[in-house]
Amino acid sequence: MADFTLFFNPMSRALIAKWALEEAGADYAIFPVEWDNKPAELFAANPLGKVPALLHHRPEGDLAVSECAAICHYLAETAAPALLPSDDEKADYFRMMFFAAGPVEAAVSNKAAGWVPEGERGEMTIGYGSFERVAAMLDDWFAERDYVCGARFTMADVYVGSQVDWGLRFGSIPAGENLEAYAARLRERPAYASSMGAIPA
Amino acid sequence: MADFTLFFNPMSRALIAKWALEEAGADYAIFPVEWDNKPAELFAANPLGKVPALLHHRPEGDLAVSECAAICHYLAETAAPALLPSDDEKADYFRMMFFAAGPVEAAVSNKAAGWVPEGERGEMTIGYGSFERVAAMLDDWFAERDYVCGARFTMADVYVGSQVDWGLRFGSIPAGENLEAYAARLRERPAYASSMGAIPA
Repeated sequence: MADFTLFFNPMSRALIAKWALEEAGADYAIFPVEWDNKPAELFAANPLGKVPALLHHRPEGDLAVSECAAICHYLAETAAPALLPSDDEKADYFRMMFFAAGPVEAAVSNKAAGWVPEGERGEMTIGYGSFERVAAMLDDWFAERDYVCGARFTMADVYVGSQVDWGLRFGSIPAGENLEAYAARLRERPAYASSMGAIPA
Repeated sequence: MADFTLFFNPMSRALIAKWALEEAGADYAIFPVEWDNKPAELFAANPLGKVPALLHHRPEGDLAVSECAAICHYLAETAAPALLPSDDEKADYFRMMFFAAGPVEAAVSNKAAGWVPEGERGEMTIGYGSFERVAAMLDDWFAERDYVCGARFTMADVYVGSQVDWGLRFGSIPAGENLEAYAARLRERPAYASSMGAIPA
């Protein structure tokens, strides 16, 4: 049996988890998931029935991981310690992982769905504030950094980079010079090509 | 100089970071932030100008951390390794940290702001799906667990627990038996009382 099983549909963020598995050089199996016929095994791993979900097969028993960012980080923790941040990189790594999973995801999703918080009061109440400021911070981050943590690729680039890459592809994040250059660096990676590369540009 | 500086306003999620600092037993200073007169130091630490933001003072230079969940986890990484998850706990720890920072935060904020995704298509597009399913998963999680990782309190309980505690206080998360019992356990902690305890019930 493989070390990991990934619940997967190619039209979903499960592609990001597949990229993470490839970067980690992990031994994994794919469990295909069809939207109109979701397997009981998926709901056992993730009660929300969302992909990606990951099983970690261990002698002591299986562990389940859901949430795309958690899966990426968990794979680094368990299968690719070289992709974990060093002590100097931890601040950038974790703040950007949670920035991408929280404010970026929420701001982009809400805007794409046609809803934006209104006025100063609305922006105070909603965690991310405004889409424009979130997008600007993301672009600024890469003005003087090649990767999330600076000069070196870490697992944070799989998750943050996927948000950037997909945002640029689908037009849900405004094209900025820094983000375009960052995404171009990521697309050159062999593990990207063998997982994310299949989606249309 | 203290090891950490917390940019703080008592009417904000900075209370959560203060609780994390107390649980970590960290040596920290408070940098008060007024909404209508935000200091330049805050924007240097977090371009979005949001609190909490944290500075880690090190001989090699300061590091800045933003995003509430990242601050909690970073404090465990640097100042309270006993509050980090064991290998057996990592799957639960990280999936619930990202679940709370992503789907829970987004679903609760959007609902509180009066916006909900419509129909099956809307729920497919938005990452969290539906508020009701997110809230149900959160309550179910604590049906057979005292804490995020099972029997033991970890740093994940500061962040996930704060989402639960505030959600119950402000009525933005439906009161469920499991969540009420979980919040009651957290409110008994001395570090909670000395930080979060000040907010009105």
